[in-house]
Amino acid sequence: MNITRDELERKCTSLMLAVGTPEDNARLVSETLVSADMRGISSHGVMRISNYMRCILSGGLHPAAKMEILGEGPAYVHVSACGGLGIPAACRTTDLVIAKAASCPLVAGAVCHSDHYGAAGYYAMKCAEKGLIGFSMSNTCPLIAVTGASSAAIGNNPFAYAAPAGKYRAILFDICMSVVASGKIQIASAQHQPIPDGWILDRTGNPTHDPDEVFKGAIFLPFAGHKGYGFAMMVELLAGVLSGAGVLGDVHSWNKQPGRDSNTGHFFMAINPAFFGGLEAFVARTGSMIEHIKAARKAPGIQEILYPGELEFARERKALESGIELPEASVIELEKAEEMVKNIKGVK
Amino acid sequence: MNITRDELERKCTSLMLAVGTPEDNARLVSETLVSADMRGISSHGVMRISNYMRCILSGGLHPAAKMEILGEGPAYVHVSACGGLGIPAACRTTDLVIAKAASCPLVAGAVCHSDHYGAAGYYAMKCAEKGLIGFSMSNTCPLIAVTGASSAAIGNNPFAYAAPAGKYRAILFDICMSVVASGKIQIASAQHQPIPDGWILDRTGNPTHDPDEVFKGAIFLPFAGHKGYGFAMMVELLAGVLSGAGVLGDVHSWNKQPGRDSNTGHFFMAINPAFFGGLEAFVARTGSMIEHIKAARKAPGIQEILYPGELEFARERKALESGIELPEASVIELEKAEEMVKNIKGVK
Repeated sequence: MNITRDELERKCTSLMLAVGTPEDNARLVSETLVSADMRGISSHGVMRISNYMRCILSGGLHPAAKMEILGEGPAYVHVSACGGLGIPAACRTTDLVIAKAASCPLVAGAVCHSDHYGAAGYYAMKCAEKGLIGFSMSNTCPLIAVTGASSAAIGNNPFAYAAPAGKYRAILFDICMSVVASGKIQIASAQHQPIPDGWILDRTGNPTHDPDEVFKGAIFLPFAGHKGYGFAMMVELLAGVLSGAGVLGDVHSWNKQPGRDSNTGHFFMAINPAFFGGLEAFVARTGSMIEHIKAARKAPGIQEILYPGELEFARERKALESGIELPEASVIELEKAEEMVKNIKGVK
Repeated sequence: MNITRDELERKCTSLMLAVGTPEDNARLVSETLVSADMRGISSHGVMRISNYMRCILSGGLHPAAKMEILGEGPAYVHVSACGGLGIPAACRTTDLVIAKAASCPLVAGAVCHSDHYGAAGYYAMKCAEKGLIGFSMSNTCPLIAVTGASSAAIGNNPFAYAAPAGKYRAILFDICMSVVASGKIQIASAQHQPIPDGWILDRTGNPTHDPDEVFKGAIFLPFAGHKGYGFAMMVELLAGVLSGAGVLGDVHSWNKQPGRDSNTGHFFMAINPAFFGGLEAFVARTGSMIEHIKAARKAPGIQEILYPGELEFARERKALESGIELPEASVIELEKAEEMVKNIKGVK
């Protein structure tokens, strides 16, 4: 389905309003999800809205919760999202971090008692657009087998950073900790293709080539073995342990328990280059780095060497020019969401 | 060779003194390198001392250089190592960061015009031992082919973090950005074993299974493809671009140019849990996280699930009890270093 940004945002906002979300929160959720779809990350786009609505309707997520400041200083803010939507809490905390970073070289925002916050990179980019190096991370319910384990021991904790890069706009890096994202396995399933060794284990902990296991509680394996494990733990330490949110199994999944209190945690950080030689020098040096990287010798069959985020920015430009190409799976989830709204109205 | 910590430190200190290093710097270099050997990371241990000495004797490294503060505030310090040894500059910057973190939740130290700083994890652990979450990273001369490239485009930039963990001592994670460390390829070479696909390219950019290529200018591949590329760039942005050090090819290798000015950069950061609910709660929650991870279902053949750093701490305890088992390659490098000293004395 091709749809304009405005139209998709309006649709999402009205869906969120229909389940009792205040207008400011509904708008933040819509803008953030639609941004992911524009960048081609449909797995973290409007596809998620039916999950948010289901959790709200089950009483496991409070769309009107006001976030509470637990601690604050020039270099940090510690926040509880009070069981509310993750995206508005993450947007507001990032805004606080950005404001503080005007007069402090290094600022952190830690958020507890939150929920799913969409694409990690969105918040890192908010920082980069203000001339800051931004970091964003969140824990999730356990999904990954750490090195040596065959059960889900730690979350597939997203991690992102972004840095301003002048005419290149920004460097934007946004990853999760598994070898492959579940979307890639779902595509293999749709195409009835076996998946390679080392992507997932089945729910009993045995290696599998069957992509359908992804729908039956598969356990993901961390990228690069102990390296992915270590980065997942770094995110867990900052977003979970330090923030005071749930840690590991104390973060609850919306798939298994829509009526749960998720207690997800996030961690944001901004570094202001103005304190280290100035933004202008930083942006010029970053641009020069990108140029050198792009000028490296190309591997056979490669047309162009890309910097992190380049592909996403190109997709976003295209989406702004000629509309967002929403994949079938997202359209189906939006239809489910509309069905939910009809049922509420029916009950009333 | 089995040798006690004290004996090995004395030996290294005297070698550094012999090439004109002031005593305080010589001691810092020795302690840091010997610590790596105790933790079993001989690739970053005393094996490196002959390289430092060669660079000093070639005039490319100034062992008596005093570091200079370029900028400072409650949350940061920006330092030039002024072409001196990396280890003393890194130790002193970390000490400044730790001191500032007593009254600031988040502190960064950026270092330019420095040199090789040994094992990244050493400085992160200095923070963890003071109750802080510590980060340490450095850029290097280009060694890695980024995604899509077949030439060395970015450094094999080390990255480490550490966090205090009470009775578990700490979580300590210390990695580089290549699929495997060069040490592992050198072992394959010594055993005349081919290496798997995807570890390195030969110097002309072609895939190779020949481990001997590691001695002939091989190009390393990043772990997990674009993920390793993105993390390498994160380190380059903080340790190189932000610090004002050399970036990519402007960082010079000691192997190719011992008489060069390396212009390496480092970045350190400490986060103080006292501002986020207190150190005691942080350590208790970290300990509980470790316990849950260790209690995960074990994969077939696995005796114990380890947390990052557990193996290194066990080796360190053993080395303190029964001496350091120095591998042959390290002994050879120490002999080379002693030979250099004899030659200097002969010239005098």
